[in-house]
Amino acid sequence: MKITFLGTSAGAPTRRRNVTSIALQLDQKSCLWLFDCGEGTQHQVLRSPLRLSQLERLFFTHLHGDHLFGLVGLLASRSLQDGVHTPVTLYGPEGLEAYVRGVLEASRTRLQYPLHIEIVRPGLICSTETEEVFAAPMLHGVPTFGYAVQEKTQSGRFDIEKAKDLGIPEGPLYGKLKRGESVTLEDGRVIEGKALVGQERPGRKIVFCGDTTFTPNAVALAKDADLLIHEATYCEEDHHLALRANHSTATMAAQVAKQAGVQMLVLTHFSARYEAEGVIGLPGLLAEAQEIFPNTVLAHDFWHHIIARREPLKTPLRED
Amino acid sequence: MKITFLGTSAGAPTRRRNVTSIALQLDQKSCLWLFDCGEGTQHQVLRSPLRLSQLERLFFTHLHGDHLFGLVGLLASRSLQDGVHTPVTLYGPEGLEAYVRGVLEASRTRLQYPLHIEIVRPGLICSTETEEVFAAPMLHGVPTFGYAVQEKTQSGRFDIEKAKDLGIPEGPLYGKLKRGESVTLEDGRVIEGKALVGQERPGRKIVFCGDTTFTPNAVALAKDADLLIHEATYCEEDHHLALRANHSTATMAAQVAKQAGVQMLVLTHFSARYEAEGVIGLPGLLAEAQEIFPNTVLAHDFWHHIIARREPLKTPLRED
Repeated sequence: MKITFLGTSAGAPTRRRNVTSIALQLDQKSCLWLFDCGEGTQHQVLRSPLRLSQLERLFFTHLHGDHLFGLVGLLASRSLQDGVHTPVTLYGPEGLEAYVRGVLEASRTRLQYPLHIEIVRPGLICSTETEEVFAAPMLHGVPTFGYAVQEKTQSGRFDIEKAKDLGIPEGPLYGKLKRGESVTLEDGRVIEGKALVGQERPGRKIVFCGDTTFTPNAVALAKDADLLIHEATYCEEDHHLALRANHSTATMAAQVAKQAGVQMLVLTHFSARYEAEGVIGLPGLLAEAQEIFPNTVLAHDFWHHIIARREPLKTPLRED
Repeated sequence: MKITFLGTSAGAPTRRRNVTSIALQLDQKSCLWLFDCGEGTQHQVLRSPLRLSQLERLFFTHLHGDHLFGLVGLLASRSLQDGVHTPVTLYGPEGLEAYVRGVLEASRTRLQYPLHIEIVRPGLICSTETEEVFAAPMLHGVPTFGYAVQEKTQSGRFDIEKAKDLGIPEGPLYGKLKRGESVTLEDGRVIEGKALVGQERPGRKIVFCGDTTFTPNAVALAKDADLLIHEATYCEEDHHLALRANHSTATMAAQVAKQAGVQMLVLTHFSARYEAEGVIGLPGLLAEAQEIFPNTVLAHDFWHHIIARREPLKTPLRED
């Protein structure tokens, strides 16, 4: 699992930072998920190794312009690419579908691939073969969700060599053994699948909090995550600005990370004021968070990070 | 009068070219007009010496996404700038207002300055102290306008020194003389204003054709212009593509320039296909136009050009 920040500025772009979008690439799958899509996201994709053709899902935390206005342009440009016909699914708060249909209609944009739009409710919103995505309401003055991507438990590696040594014929029996079932061979031997399958690995968990001020919902959503991405529009000195606009300070973000017991915190969505001279600046904002949660980093545009696989469990887990 | 190209790619941005927007700065006025506003226009403004705070008018040729999707983000970012309260007026085809109001509403964007929206009909659409703007329908499959910015005749310089030498008292008489009227002094002398006012200069004319295939309307609109900006999405070899999509070839653009008798032709809105290898490429596209209209150049992002003032007329013109 790899994340790439495509925009890390709050509200409006600056010369160095675009408005919000975060890319997630899943292991061993040529697919791209995006979280939010501020104006210019397609331009950032062009400057990155990511490919719009691989876009599969796009999750919106909320519908403020700096998280939304890159959507239809990106969909339209994807549609101009030769041979791109795979569907895209959008997830977001009430109002997303009316917005998208309205903009497509006004601009007479016709997409050459299917577009699905799912209105998000708290809880499980999407489940694939390998991941589940959960949403929880955040606190931002407009309907806003945080998202947790929970990788499913990864089954242990099937030991093909050992199976061959035991003289088990290749074919459907392998499937049963991989699933941990026991099979009876023609010669009467009974083989336990568990003996041929390595230990399972717990799935990884990445949490994207949308724009929000401090909320216990974020703590609950982020519980034990490998990585928490949390906005830190302001530093604590500007606490009053954060409260006024339903945003977080770096301190609030670090408190969420600490209370949730995450492995790593990435701060993003910075006010342009911290690029100006004579203020605490982003190093100060980082220091403030690290006092509370040491394993904190600041995102910048195109900053990417691979989330390492978790260690196998001592005792293999079974979902049954 | 200075024009700056903020985007010169057709349909979708490339690594080198953004989608369409063209800036016009008028002499001796701190005001900025934009023609079209593709996604990422505000980002291009950030990278240029232009200032959103000076934006006064924004003209849309049509409502395709690559000319439109940067609008609301740009308006919203302008609204976040401290102390910017001057109004902005949008001009465009039917549907513009519904689009803008819908996007502002969906994203809960509130602007801190007045926004006016004028639906364009062919003919004179706006008149300022120094310019008039005319619209003419183009041929692009959706309602599309080309715009001519016609500077008004510039009155000749009033010779203050000569007026003082003649003993004319400063005050309201100067205004009359500047307008070319005759005045009678207290001592009975009659002074002809014309004798104190230099020769007039004809106004300059700049024409922005939106996306269009060849149309006589473009020729009429561009008649005797100092500068014609015309799309050239394709080269003549790809004539069939131009016709299919209601676009122009470089040849069509050059024919408009030649028939209209303009001074200079700037081509823009190039298909990304000409950046690929093994095709005619943009130098070929330019050569094709120059065969017909030699004073042709290719625009690129941030290419800018100052349109020189016209020479004074031999015989002063009077509007009456």
